[in-house]
Amino acid sequence: MSKTILDYNTVELDKNDNTVIIIDQTLLPAKTELIKLSTAKEIWDAIYLLKVRGAPAIGVAAAFGLYVLSAQIYNEIRNGSDVQKDSAKTATGFDEGTRFYEEFLKQKDYLNSSRPTAVNLSWALNRMDRVCKAALDEGRLLEDVIEILYKESMDIQKEDIDTCRKLGEYGLSLIKKGDGILTHCNAGQLATSKYGTATAPIYLGLEKGYDLKVFADETRPLLQGARLTAFELQSAGVDVTLICDNMAYSVMKKGLINAVFVGCDRVAANGDVANKIGTGAVATLAKRFNIPFYVCAPTSTIDLDTTCGDDIKIEQRPDTEVTEMWYEHRMAPEGVRVFNPAFDVTDNEYITAIITENGIAYPPYSDSLKKLKVK
Amino acid sequence: MSKTILDYNTVELDKNDNTVIIIDQTLLPAKTELIKLSTAKEIWDAIYLLKVRGAPAIGVAAAFGLYVLSAQIYNEIRNGSDVQKDSAKTATGFDEGTRFYEEFLKQKDYLNSSRPTAVNLSWALNRMDRVCKAALDEGRLLEDVIEILYKESMDIQKEDIDTCRKLGEYGLSLIKKGDGILTHCNAGQLATSKYGTATAPIYLGLEKGYDLKVFADETRPLLQGARLTAFELQSAGVDVTLICDNMAYSVMKKGLINAVFVGCDRVAANGDVANKIGTGAVATLAKRFNIPFYVCAPTSTIDLDTTCGDDIKIEQRPDTEVTEMWYEHRMAPEGVRVFNPAFDVTDNEYITAIITENGIAYPPYSDSLKKLKVK
Repeated sequence: MSKTILDYNTVELDKNDNTVIIIDQTLLPAKTELIKLSTAKEIWDAIYLLKVRGAPAIGVAAAFGLYVLSAQIYNEIRNGSDVQKDSAKTATGFDEGTRFYEEFLKQKDYLNSSRPTAVNLSWALNRMDRVCKAALDEGRLLEDVIEILYKESMDIQKEDIDTCRKLGEYGLSLIKKGDGILTHCNAGQLATSKYGTATAPIYLGLEKGYDLKVFADETRPLLQGARLTAFELQSAGVDVTLICDNMAYSVMKKGLINAVFVGCDRVAANGDVANKIGTGAVATLAKRFNIPFYVCAPTSTIDLDTTCGDDIKIEQRPDTEVTEMWYEHRMAPEGVRVFNPAFDVTDNEYITAIITENGIAYPPYSDSLKKLKVK
Repeated sequence: MSKTILDYNTVELDKNDNTVIIIDQTLLPAKTELIKLSTAKEIWDAIYLLKVRGAPAIGVAAAFGLYVLSAQIYNEIRNGSDVQKDSAKTATGFDEGTRFYEEFLKQKDYLNSSRPTAVNLSWALNRMDRVCKAALDEGRLLEDVIEILYKESMDIQKEDIDTCRKLGEYGLSLIKKGDGILTHCNAGQLATSKYGTATAPIYLGLEKGYDLKVFADETRPLLQGARLTAFELQSAGVDVTLICDNMAYSVMKKGLINAVFVGCDRVAANGDVANKIGTGAVATLAKRFNIPFYVCAPTSTIDLDTTCGDDIKIEQRPDTEVTEMWYEHRMAPEGVRVFNPAFDVTDNEYITAIITENGIAYPPYSDSLKKLKVK
């Protein structure tokens, strides 16, 4: 592979070709393959089948997808009538705008059904809807509406990249050259538009010659650390070593880790953090070995309406992820009971700092998070 | 399956058939198949290919194996000459004894080469050798020598069962009915002749109606917890739930665990313990949640010549165990660096007690272990 993962955007829009281009993450790490999505079904499937994954990346893919479909609706309306074709530059007629918006909402709802629980999916689609409706209400040209949707989708991507980069700069300010870094799961470039969250300080460190030594937990049961984090860091030229989750203790005990960076799914108002299963154990070990434990959290993940970690509902996932997924034959007895929570909660007293795009929050988090959230 | 795992011995001797019978552990958990071993090659392969595994079980299998081969040597000598056949009850002649012992040593050395680093293997074979040589030196009948070897091999098995049972009784005295128990890796019946070490309190609890709720860490990378511990406990009728290693934090945090029992590979004089990778993390979590952490250690594993954990060399194992073993396709990028230590060291201050067949050692271990070891 001559290009590295940093030469790609996880999700891209090709405006001329009117397609969304993604790295098919289901083929990683064996194969880095870009695929083009142009029909509603293709976009829906890509999200549903986890070809694109990670909340920020899903949001961007959905926004790009809705733009591509909007441009198709526009072209159909224009090509549908020769009269209208000639008068393309006139103000959008009532019927035309209504017809466009009806189709737009249909596609929006369809895309939104691909992963109904992903917050960023509906957030991005609603954002596209708002600007679309506002432009139509103002009686803008349909052609202009399409341009406004294009700009909005590009803004969503740009803001995601900016957020990750700023977060990475704050994170990098907390470590020094040559440090050993442990990360868990994949809060990487592949989960966002670029840089990732937990990996952002690592990629910025690479740009600035920090020579970081990174250890990636494989992250059972779904192995995002092995399949995605180890892959993207290795591809980018980062010094990365893969370990099983139960080896974090050993690398910490050997003095190989100077800081832990993890992503998060939700931050409660008191600083308790829900993240991928296993995060709480890593935080406990880090405290024992006096290693700073940092949570990388775009402010969009800070939920001031959730008081504390106890209020976060933890999703239970299928037994088969533990007992047979990835295996050639079952590696556990038939019918054995399995406990398979997707996330755990790390208590705020185990978190050294929470890093956002607006700055670094330190304890007490009930004060510091509020300030960064409203910034 | 109508029989449970407790209805089998992990290793058995069929004296009439002159065969060693083992459960083929490479077929577990998919299939419980007993196989008969009668040739030297079959016995050697069974140990080498991990069809029988776990230090105590390997020792017993080797002792039974050497008895079976000795009986074959005896029969060959007897059948080799009609004259000798008639005079089977006479004292062993010089040539006959020499011939027997030469063959005996050849088979002993051959079996000992199957897993050269397994301490119990050479320990059991040397024990058989000692009684054999002593009997021959006394000029005992060859027939009697065979009986002496039979008795010695049965004693090795019986002592292993007694050790595990006593250890289990001490362990059971530390818990109460209905307790939740966490265990890591397989220090189970399948690693010993019966009862196991870490599982001994669980099996005795089952006999006495303790209604324990057991959680088994799957134990990456080799998954002994999923493949063997979950299997044998489920088969025996124990209430067992399989979890990934990184979920131990969650079950402890939910208050589901009242005690942790683990086995061990070596106990240093100061009470530091080397055991399967991941054990140190479980001990750290147990301390955080104020859960007692018990190490189950036959006194044969207490090594008073090793001062502390730092003196224990930790074996690094092949990368492929982490990156491709068990998987249909690689789940980590080609060429990624891997750190794969087989064991870690749990520091003595994280261990509530060390349970042996001679009693329970409490801190300070430098005193208590010495007393139990020499008992």
